[in-house]
Amino acid sequence: MAAQSTASTEWRGDLASGTGTTTPESGAFEPVEVTWDSRTSRSAGKTSPEELLAAAHASCFCMALAHSLAEAGTPPERLEATATVEFEPGEGVRSSRIAVTGQVPDVDQAGFEEAARDAGDNCPISGALSIDVTVEATLESR
Amino acid sequence: MAAQSTASTEWRGDLASGTGTTTPESGAFEPVEVTWDSRTSRSAGKTSPEELLAAAHASCFCMALAHSLAEAGTPPERLEATATVEFEPGEGVRSSRIAVTGQVPDVDQAGFEEAARDAGDNCPISGALSIDVTVEATLESR
Repeated sequence: MAAQSTASTEWRGDLASGTGTTTPESGAFEPVEVTWDSRTSRSAGKTSPEELLAAAHASCFCMALAHSLAEAGTPPERLEATATVEFEPGEGVRSSRIAVTGQVPDVDQAGFEEAARDAGDNCPISGALSIDVTVEATLESR
Repeated sequence: MAAQSTASTEWRGDLASGTGTTTPESGAFEPVEVTWDSRTSRSAGKTSPEELLAAAHASCFCMALAHSLAEAGTPPERLEATATVEFEPGEGVRSSRIAVTGQVPDVDQAGFEEAARDAGDNCPISGALSIDVTVEATLESR
């Protein structure tokens, strides 16, 4: 059965001086402030649509990679994926770059890279995106 | 100049029994837990890639709509947009449905609907998506 996930934003004012508050229906995090400034310049303590997309992509990518590694009989001990989403004001969202490191017993660097590329190509959030997605994978020595 | 937004997920274990923790670089919200269960069944207190995508989309949509209304000389007093992202396990992310209500002086329902449809078609997160995006807009009486 399809799963529905919901979040809301309340916005007051125009783009440059206005402020939004974004709330996830799950209550997993407190309502967070979003502004144009926090979107285009780094602004500690506020988020942006692209940061939230990066969070969606990093978490989906990890699930897909954990799944494929486990299906191959080599579940990961630990994965850490960082997604960086680039936004060019006036042009749009350009890309999501994923850098992943992993501790995966019985897998070599080439095998880890292949599984990571596959997750980058095929995880559900990648499948929902029309932007460029790249993956850089590094197996950690243990 | 392009803005870079970053978030990370740490994952331990396989897909079904593993757990992830997703952290936004801005510190706008505390690290949040993500699991397969929270993704596919409603699970209070944990988030999912689709909920994070819904948060990204709702916040981006509000900014785009606030901007176009202000550019037309009718800035909104208040907008509230709810994005619902549908995920079908095994198939992928299917759609994002946005429902928006607004208090906008000097705009009628038809004008508000037109501006909202345009924001749904053209906001940067919509532009980064390949899935179906729909918008339902309701002007609030004041």
